[in-house]
Amino acid sequence: MGHHNPLRDSRDLRLPRIAGPCSLVIFGVTGDLSRKKLLPAVYDLASRGLLPAGFALVGFGRREWSDEDFVAYVERSVRERARTPFDEDTFRHLAEGMRFVRGEFDDAAAFEQLSKTVSELDRLRGTRGNHAFYMSVPPSAFPIVSRQLADSGLAKSDKGAWRRVIIEKPFGHDLQSARELNRVVAEVFDPDSVFRIDHYLGKETVQNLLALRFANTMFEPIWNSNYVDHVQITMAEDIGIGSRAGYFDGIGIARDVIQNHLLQLLALTAMEEPVSFSADDLRAEKIKVLSAVRLPEDLSLHTARGQYSAGWQGSEQAVGYLQEQGVNPDSTTETYAAVRLDIDTRRWAGVPFYLRTGKRLGKRVTEIAVVFKRAPHLPFEQTSTSELGENAIVIRVQPDEGVTLRFGSKVPGTAMEVRDVNMDFSYGNSFTEASPEAYERLILDVLLGEPPLFPTTKEVELSWQILDPIEQYWATLGQPQAYRAGTWGPKEADEMLARDGRCWRMP
Amino acid sequence: MGHHNPLRDSRDLRLPRIAGPCSLVIFGVTGDLSRKKLLPAVYDLASRGLLPAGFALVGFGRREWSDEDFVAYVERSVRERARTPFDEDTFRHLAEGMRFVRGEFDDAAAFEQLSKTVSELDRLRGTRGNHAFYMSVPPSAFPIVSRQLADSGLAKSDKGAWRRVIIEKPFGHDLQSARELNRVVAEVFDPDSVFRIDHYLGKETVQNLLALRFANTMFEPIWNSNYVDHVQITMAEDIGIGSRAGYFDGIGIARDVIQNHLLQLLALTAMEEPVSFSADDLRAEKIKVLSAVRLPEDLSLHTARGQYSAGWQGSEQAVGYLQEQGVNPDSTTETYAAVRLDIDTRRWAGVPFYLRTGKRLGKRVTEIAVVFKRAPHLPFEQTSTSELGENAIVIRVQPDEGVTLRFGSKVPGTAMEVRDVNMDFSYGNSFTEASPEAYERLILDVLLGEPPLFPTTKEVELSWQILDPIEQYWATLGQPQAYRAGTWGPKEADEMLARDGRCWRMP
Repeated sequence: MGHHNPLRDSRDLRLPRIAGPCSLVIFGVTGDLSRKKLLPAVYDLASRGLLPAGFALVGFGRREWSDEDFVAYVERSVRERARTPFDEDTFRHLAEGMRFVRGEFDDAAAFEQLSKTVSELDRLRGTRGNHAFYMSVPPSAFPIVSRQLADSGLAKSDKGAWRRVIIEKPFGHDLQSARELNRVVAEVFDPDSVFRIDHYLGKETVQNLLALRFANTMFEPIWNSNYVDHVQITMAEDIGIGSRAGYFDGIGIARDVIQNHLLQLLALTAMEEPVSFSADDLRAEKIKVLSAVRLPEDLSLHTARGQYSAGWQGSEQAVGYLQEQGVNPDSTTETYAAVRLDIDTRRWAGVPFYLRTGKRLGKRVTEIAVVFKRAPHLPFEQTSTSELGENAIVIRVQPDEGVTLRFGSKVPGTAMEVRDVNMDFSYGNSFTEASPEAYERLILDVLLGEPPLFPTTKEVELSWQILDPIEQYWATLGQPQAYRAGTWGPKEADEMLARDGRCWRMP
Repeated sequence: MGHHNPLRDSRDLRLPRIAGPCSLVIFGVTGDLSRKKLLPAVYDLASRGLLPAGFALVGFGRREWSDEDFVAYVERSVRERARTPFDEDTFRHLAEGMRFVRGEFDDAAAFEQLSKTVSELDRLRGTRGNHAFYMSVPPSAFPIVSRQLADSGLAKSDKGAWRRVIIEKPFGHDLQSARELNRVVAEVFDPDSVFRIDHYLGKETVQNLLALRFANTMFEPIWNSNYVDHVQITMAEDIGIGSRAGYFDGIGIARDVIQNHLLQLLALTAMEEPVSFSADDLRAEKIKVLSAVRLPEDLSLHTARGQYSAGWQGSEQAVGYLQEQGVNPDSTTETYAAVRLDIDTRRWAGVPFYLRTGKRLGKRVTEIAVVFKRAPHLPFEQTSTSELGENAIVIRVQPDEGVTLRFGSKVPGTAMEVRDVNMDFSYGNSFTEASPEAYERLILDVLLGEPPLFPTTKEVELSWQILDPIEQYWATLGQPQAYRAGTWGPKEADEMLARDGRCWRMP
């Protein structure tokens, strides 16, 4: 109670989160992810002073590169993509700790070389045996790389030093393959050393969801089935599959997006308040929610698939999925997926969560919309509320990060007439601090050994457990329903919501 | 539940609220209120097509004016002050129904002339005996004007026509004088014919408070003592008393503002949901709240008075109240007043309502701030919430009409740190419809015979019942505490809140 807060004065006590001495080893360093995201993020951390003085960066790849070639490659990537301005001194300092190790994943000698390189860095840069291995490689390469790291003695360490491994999705393509993958990784690394990257969890607004819910008084009281009608979680892309046919075709967007990003967003939206934001407490709540997820009884009524056909994306013509380069012309892979999930808890009983994701949709947007019931009674004349919809709290994850509230307001004029209006909070306008990239946050967390934002084995397996029956049902069907590129998905998806008396938000 | 709303299609059923044939007679038509507000409002209603074709406007005053002089006077006022653009046709049409009646209030012949004039209008303009009398005169003139209207047969009517009287505040200066005034008015007019103008109630945001609370789902569940810490209702002016010393000195700002505007805002903020927005239902709820208001046990601890001394208002030098023209140099009249009120209902027990108003304060602003308790538990490290205040919903009544939400949001960056941010809804940005002036709405309501926005005798008397003991206590004290013009009031007022562990918002 009251406004005077003794904690106000303790600002100086907030210690900067700076990682201790260590190196980051990136497998697949010449790939897109590394070039566009990881290397710029490392530089941005350095330029913000969040890396230790003796930090080292090791690239592992097949190219015939010298250390100098690698440094030049990193510099290009940083100049093109880094968020913070390029500073010669910062980069030169960082470059002193850069090494490149040439090799194939099945080449034991290359891993011997890697082992020597990091030992040398321990000596020269004081990284003290602390090394993180970033597997920016196809999942099929996980087992061999893990094995090689184990065989060359890099996977585990003694003398209080740490080894950590960072795995990019996909974490398998169903429950069985995920379990197999987890088994392989667990054989080589301690469970606490495995960091599964879901870069959505590194986004500011996703973390803000926790702040929004639990640092405030006014949202939590209405965050339940007494007031919430349903929740819509949307991740829409306006682009097609681009050059990813090799990965995407046969996998589909449900495995690519729902299994990880959307189910994680669902978990954070629906979970109970954790005892603290420590990894264990946070994961315990997410696991509880995922365990309580119930599939629709009749999957034909409450799931929907689509595949984009040719159309227009703004002023640009887009080819259909089946015409994309590298796609099997008979492919039944879905590029749009929607599903209704229920959560069997006291808080959420009777409140459906609708998840949808698609490529070549109307626009690029990711958002969580908590849609409220209408007021139980409206003491207005009927006509005066004809333009009043449901209240909603929308957490905008991207591109315009922020929060929107939709509520009814009196229309100016001499009559009492109520219409929906929006109230916006935008990250960009409200803070002078720039939002770090998700990968900055996540790489730093790995180096600090702070796992709260990384999903566990258990979460990954629960997510597959939710998705597997849907995938199995879809596998019995033929071609997904077509939707024109640039529209909001197949008719099936609209019908799915219409059956429940609802409709999708137009974000 | 659901988004499809059958009422959506019924838009065309909304009938425009147009008054039937009638006239408006203004006493004190040459005064400031009439020139600046009433006459422009009449024109604005006409230009919006909300007045009947045969509408008539009668001015009553002491000047030696012809009807043409009056028309010229109205035209000047409209051109200077009207909200809508000046249109020759609209004005000419309106001018055809304008008449001026010259006279003193104690001159029976003048009222005979007035009676003839409105009868003639009934014939020429078809006003059908429907006449509203606007008393834009000092309260001391109410009895005589009422009596004259009665004597000349204008106060009541037969044959289904109506007569209404509009009274401007002040409605007395204490409970006794208010009762006396109400008695005089009641002798002459039917209770349903008396419209007491509190122009604050005609403001869009005040009415929006009703829409906000009762058309939405998400505010009402937290609108009670479980979640609200306290409420602050502020009406701050940056100007001094100007030329109003004759009225203001000896009366003071508590009688001028708290008794009517602020207690009405308190009632609308705190009341239960009315069965409907009809006058009877709305007033019943306001009366319940005002009846439940409890004064502080020790008035010395929970009320505060101030009087402005010389200072700077922005770049302009301001004289002290005692140096203002027409003010008694020994005056103990307060120009700042603050008071804590409690409301003895289940909803508000333990939630103080702090009311404050003052002249020559930091800026011109009227707002209702509902300030919430901090979350009962914050699962964050202490330092990360050091810049987190209380959540608040602020209804901005003027000048920038709208709603602000204050809540905690994650600060962008790699640490979990929470800071207050604001989310705004502004009338100006959200609606293409312009807000009508309060007087437009209220005059139209009088002509339509719709009294919901006008306080009743009972409300006026209850408000004096709340204020009288405070005025009586203040009368036993000497000079109010001085505060420099341009500041936010006397120290006493800050100490009053500090005693409760709170502080005033800086609007």
